[in-house]
Amino acid sequence: MIVLGIDPGTAATGYGVVCEEREPRGSLSLIECGVIRTAPRDPLSVRLRGLYEEVCALIERHHPEVLSIEDVFYAKNVRTTVVLGHARGVMLLAAEQRAVAIYEYPPAEIKKTVVGAGAATKEQVQFMVARLLRLKTAPQPSDAADGVAAALAHLLTARVPRFERTR
Amino acid sequence: MIVLGIDPGTAATGYGVVCEEREPRGSLSLIECGVIRTAPRDPLSVRLRGLYEEVCALIERHHPEVLSIEDVFYAKNVRTTVVLGHARGVMLLAAEQRAVAIYEYPPAEIKKTVVGAGAATKEQVQFMVARLLRLKTAPQPSDAADGVAAALAHLLTARVPRFERTR
Repeated sequence: MIVLGIDPGTAATGYGVVCEEREPRGSLSLIECGVIRTAPRDPLSVRLRGLYEEVCALIERHHPEVLSIEDVFYAKNVRTTVVLGHARGVMLLAAEQRAVAIYEYPPAEIKKTVVGAGAATKEQVQFMVARLLRLKTAPQPSDAADGVAAALAHLLTARVPRFERTR
Repeated sequence: MIVLGIDPGTAATGYGVVCEEREPRGSLSLIECGVIRTAPRDPLSVRLRGLYEEVCALIERHHPEVLSIEDVFYAKNVRTTVVLGHARGVMLLAAEQRAVAIYEYPPAEIKKTVVGAGAATKEQVQFMVARLLRLKTAPQPSDAADGVAAALAHLLTARVPRFERTR
């Protein structure tokens, strides 16, 4: 099971590709992580095209079964929230066109699942991501770790039997 | 000069394709207009894919030089604004991928240019769209007329010499 996790941002979009081995049950490993950046001075449509092409390339490179993407963060600045909506739109399109199942998780739920606290700091997320994946150093920058955390949150949530869930 | 006008909506997206003849100068004619609808009960990603494919088909059918699209309307409901952002994202992508020049106009500016009043009613927009294009009846539903109005707004704005503009 391969999961592509994405933390969409207006300037930097973090991503992580995580693999869960069938045997031994639940062994998790990081395949790739990083940040997609677009130039803030470019027109929005050019930035959207760049984002779309990068996400398509990630899907074609790793063939994930699932896209686990952070739900919209309602920024105080409405304009930022709207631009984020545009960016998420092209990412959802890329996954939908390639028959990747889409799961959306609120930021606090991702942190709660990975760190144990919905209000965890960026450093705590980086620490737990490194620990769960047995990495020597935490993914840098923190946006990349947030992308990996989105992928981990889906895999860890899926492990909990349905009758134990409290959603 | 062919312009594709779009009034993006969460449930219904109006569009209009308008042609301006070079000779006689400025003769405007309606090529096509209508509404793209998506099923509200479908997942957002499925609806985005539908919208994207319809806009791509319109561009491939008419080869517009310009996409004139309504700027984001900041709805009172933030969720609606965010979904609208997702929808606009895939439309801007479709135009950018096909090298269609993109112009964005606020709703009030479109109404002011086409009707003469930024707070014009839907009926006034339908009336003026029909008059400017010499149509026997106004485009129905009003979303389609709003899409045509977006196309007309671009063509009429472009006619005003730059030094006369008050933007």
